[in-house]
Amino acid sequence: MEGTPKQPSNLSLLLQSILEEARQLPEAGKVADYIPALAAVDADYAGIAVATIDGQVHWAGDAEQCFSIQSVSKIFGLVQAMNRLGDSMWERVHMEPSGQSFNSIVQLEWEHGIPRNPFINAGAIVVSDMLVSHYSASKAAALSFIRRLAMTEQIWINEEVFQSEKEHGNRNAALAYLMKGFGNIVAEVPDVLDHYFYQCSVEMSCKQLALSLVFLANRGVHPLTEETICSRRDAHRVNAILSTSGMYDQSGEFAFTVGLPAKSGVGGGIAAVVPNYGVIAAWSPKLNSFGNSCRGMHMITRLAAQLGLSVY
Amino acid sequence: MEGTPKQPSNLSLLLQSILEEARQLPEAGKVADYIPALAAVDADYAGIAVATIDGQVHWAGDAEQCFSIQSVSKIFGLVQAMNRLGDSMWERVHMEPSGQSFNSIVQLEWEHGIPRNPFINAGAIVVSDMLVSHYSASKAAALSFIRRLAMTEQIWINEEVFQSEKEHGNRNAALAYLMKGFGNIVAEVPDVLDHYFYQCSVEMSCKQLALSLVFLANRGVHPLTEETICSRRDAHRVNAILSTSGMYDQSGEFAFTVGLPAKSGVGGGIAAVVPNYGVIAAWSPKLNSFGNSCRGMHMITRLAAQLGLSVY
Amino acid sequence: MEGTPKQPSNLSLLLQSILEEARQLPEAGKVADYIPALAAVDADYAGIAVATIDGQVHWAGDAEQCFSIQSVSKIFGLVQAMNRLGDSMWERVHMEPSGQSFNSIVQLEWEHGIPRNPFINAGAIVVSDMLVSHYSASKAAALSFIRRLAMTEQIWINEEVFQSEKEHGNRNAALAYLMKGFGNIVAEVPDVLDHYFYQCSVEMSCKQLALSLVFLANRGVHPLTEETICSRRDAHRVNAILSTSGMYDQSGEFAFTVGLPAKSGVGGGIAAVVPNYGVIAAWSPKLNSFGNSCRGMHMITRLAAQLGLSVY
Amino acid sequence: MEGTPKQPSNLSLLLQSILEEARQLPEAGKVADYIPALAAVDADYAGIAVATIDGQVHWAGDAEQCFSIQSVSKIFGLVQAMNRLGDSMWERVHMEPSGQSFNSIVQLEWEHGIPRNPFINAGAIVVSDMLVSHYSASKAAALSFIRRLAMTEQIWINEEVFQSEKEHGNRNAALAYLMKGFGNIVAEVPDVLDHYFYQCSVEMSCKQLALSLVFLANRGVHPLTEETICSRRDAHRVNAILSTSGMYDQSGEFAFTVGLPAKSGVGGGIAAVVPNYGVIAAWSPKLNSFGNSCRGMHMITRLAAQLGLSVY
Repeated sequence: MEGTPKQPSNLSLLLQSILEEARQLPEAGKVADYIPALAAVDADYAGIAVATIDGQVHWAGDAEQCFSIQSVSKIFGLVQAMNRLGDSMWERVHMEPSGQSFNSIVQLEWEHGIPRNPFINAGAIVVSDMLVSHYSASKAAALSFIRRLAMTEQIWINEEVFQSEKEHGNRNAALAYLMKGFGNIVAEVPDVLDHYFYQCSVEMSCKQLALSLVFLANRGVHPLTEETICSRRDAHRVNAILSTSGMYDQSGEFAFTVGLPAKSGVGGGIAAVVPNYGVIAAWSPKLNSFGNSCRGMHMITRLAAQLGLSVY
Repeated sequence: MEGTPKQPSNLSLLLQSILEEARQLPEAGKVADYIPALAAVDADYAGIAVATIDGQVHWAGDAEQCFSIQSVSKIFGLVQAMNRLGDSMWERVHMEPSGQSFNSIVQLEWEHGIPRNPFINAGAIVVSDMLVSHYSASKAAALSFIRRLAMTEQIWINEEVFQSEKEHGNRNAALAYLMKGFGNIVAEVPDVLDHYFYQCSVEMSCKQLALSLVFLANRGVHPLTEETICSRRDAHRVNAILSTSGMYDQSGEFAFTVGLPAKSGVGGGIAAVVPNYGVIAAWSPKLNSFGNSCRGMHMITRLAAQLGLSVY
Repeated sequence: MEGTPKQPSNLSLLLQSILEEARQLPEAGKVADYIPALAAVDADYAGIAVATIDGQVHWAGDAEQCFSIQSVSKIFGLVQAMNRLGDSMWERVHMEPSGQSFNSIVQLEWEHGIPRNPFINAGAIVVSDMLVSHYSASKAAALSFIRRLAMTEQIWINEEVFQSEKEHGNRNAALAYLMKGFGNIVAEVPDVLDHYFYQCSVEMSCKQLALSLVFLANRGVHPLTEETICSRRDAHRVNAILSTSGMYDQSGEFAFTVGLPAKSGVGGGIAAVVPNYGVIAAWSPKLNSFGNSCRGMHMITRLAAQLGLSVY
Repeated sequence: MEGTPKQPSNLSLLLQSILEEARQLPEAGKVADYIPALAAVDADYAGIAVATIDGQVHWAGDAEQCFSIQSVSKIFGLVQAMNRLGDSMWERVHMEPSGQSFNSIVQLEWEHGIPRNPFINAGAIVVSDMLVSHYSASKAAALSFIRRLAMTEQIWINEEVFQSEKEHGNRNAALAYLMKGFGNIVAEVPDVLDHYFYQCSVEMSCKQLALSLVFLANRGVHPLTEETICSRRDAHRVNAILSTSGMYDQSGEFAFTVGLPAKSGVGGGIAAVVPNYGVIAAWSPKLNSFGNSCRGMHMITRLAAQLGLSVY
């Protein structure tokens, strides 16, 4: 980040202007349709929220509407596992960018069942296995952790999405069984996948998502509760992996054009961390060919350019 | 970077202390031996220099001793090409991390001759092709560009290394012919490789290297000559690609533990950019299994931790 | 095959001599140990049997001892599926050699869930899916088919092997779920694997195995029952696929040195078809690095050389 | 082969009938166009010849018209190398089917520069290297060998094709340099490629091709000159590799539908060996998606079916 960003006194106005611009974009992308529950979402939704490290949340558009956070949830699982297992977890999942499409099984085979990083599906499944093995009720623990970060009990999973994911989860099952064959899954595969799909089915709004992740911009400390969510070093580490691996096979391009650690999900959500400033959460359901929200990318790109937020 | 780093009033003392610590490290790594000229280098050399955006250069150890910069030269070639070709160059080389060892030919085949990024060998060869095609005397132009950045005419290539690289360059020739088969090399392959190996054979000291790259930490502007070397946006972009792809297949781990854009070479040199602060250049010949200098990694890791330099 | 093979009047003597030679071989190879039930087999067993198209069975050594036929069972499943589905089955499994180790998941990903041939695990799993979908009691049908070919009701599965395979079948589960993700598995994966592992757990002796497959050397007709087991064309086709793909990643070398269609299993069994002459079944538990029986390979190689059996 | 094939008393009539049928086939396939000299060939040519081990040659259509034999020449090079180097050659090229498209560089990388078999481009380039290293004038030796087999001095290379191949040979250069990087090419790459492309540029007619290869059906002995061209064992071996690897990535299907060792070239020629009977050579320029002649495949398939020639 180049020096201090401009004061956000009129940040809400800026967000509104960027949102309207995004809404004018020519039709592009398509809503994820691999499960019916996601395909049914209204494609016209668009929202953006910024939670700053001073505890404020600015927003525009459909930022209070809940959506399926999908792979953005991988951040929460990772932080839980880092807290619970410490550095030993990195023997079971690496921290290198994957250089391939997000669910490819090929690299996993080459690297003997050790996923490249915790933000590809295989890596998040290993993290889920860690959580299943270390918590007596891992799903409840996951939901409880997210609620604590978002400072509300009003966060739920979408039961229809959860069931639908499980029914269409053959590729993830293949990844999990392959890793179990290599000895890198400890619990029973169906239990691991149950946790993994549960976590993917959490629904949050842009405002909740931004607030719940702002500790990553604030050296691990939640700015409102003042609770230490993770160590400063681990906050740096999560941001580092987000920078190289958070946006599927468009991660390099996102670093190149935006310059922020970020994670996207096929529900159309994107969360971007601005160290020492705050977290941006954007949402719009239509995805580009990499699986990233078209309008979400546009809004974050514009905001980062306007405020000079690039870390590079 | 978290706020303003500590004042470097005693930066030289800190560098000296870190250097001595590195020299005490148990023996580890081995000098690159794929060509005799590199294998002959004294393994005990170790130096470090920091050029800050206020124009100062601090240093310790063998920081005035010239060494073969090898792949660190890929930064210079990239900036030259960005200046000369503009955004059209990104149709011929991508900006995604490669997720594989640094000279693998497999990914190039999958992606139809378009290299993943300009810091793997295939990508730098495409960049060399651009320079050969756009300059009447590309080798002279490359050397002249580096001399201008380092503010000295006393920079040369090592003729023995240059010839030796050409004689042992079969893998790079394979990459080049494969890309030519895909139509992504325009000039004659021997001419392209001649430029590529020439660039790799440049010798510089840590002090020269740090000074010559400090524009990347200063929004594209050379702090001493005040010349604009590249646009602010392009400085951000180079730093972004360095962050995801500069340290071979250890790039993710380097982001995770250090958090700085950086590039290494098999001569044992590493250059790390600290946006809005300066550039660190470290050198020691012994390499780890990824091809990165063991002591160089150690020195930069310690310095970044001590000064809180991580961009994340 | 070059002209008519030598008359087998003293074939049994030849088999005995070859068997004794094989028993003198220096210790080499190791018994399959991925499941305990296989690892427990006495490594010193060795047997060989030849069933000729005139209905005779010659043999030597432990040719009446039952062993786990494992992947040799893939032949039976394939013939069942060819009979039941006709040529439409070849849309779901190809007939090309795989060029890779026998259970690699990589090629399956590249070719969108269509296995290269029915003798690699993925291909046999697709064939099992066909049988599960077309028979109301596919496991009983499989056992019944084998008993009919071997002309005895005294063929059983090894229940311990069956359970053990299921417990250690993570890689095969990964293959099955990956193919289901591509839409190439119709039934439920656990049902398909249940059939697949059941078939692998059949136990037969060399004499039974040779007799049960001799129809492949006799244009599809069982020489003793005179029943048409498959069409002449399909017998040719099975032999063709055996020739290119029956011996794992040693198939080419087996064609090169022996020149016969053949299939091996990790239980140490090998069945080789000599068109218009008969079938050789050899067994000895120790495997080479490709998963083929060391002594079994030796015995068949010697017999083929002595009798001039190569089809080329 | 099932017993003795029908007497060829009216073989020429059969060839004529099959040829006319092939000429009636709906338009399909396209002439190789990667070099202009091949693209210029009249697509309507079609010829077939059968040389039997009793020394006769039967034929129909354009069987006296010379065409570019291209990859069919790999057989000649292989036999030369087997004669000259003996079994030691198999340390530098394997005999396993490749399971991938015919010029893929990926497998070569995986297997450290050892090609899967001598009929893929990489394998034939290694064989060319052997010949360049063992003959003082390897190109003259290659042409002389072919002339001796075809019993005529009237065989030449097409100089235009030869030059054109060299100009468009970037992929083959990539393969050669990659293998040189692994230490599996001894001579200089340009010399090796010069030999390789020279061999590919030989022009022969169907009649000449069938006659020149009939020794492979006759235990290594040329039926007319009675010269031993290679050992019986080596004739078997060549036929074995042809069976698993001669028809590019359609080798398995060709074994499945035809059941004969065969080699095709992108000039539209195919040679198929019928052990103990003879050799079929067919030619028509239009190729299917695998690079095999559409009409050539059709003619050989029909002839093999009519005469019951399958080795299986």
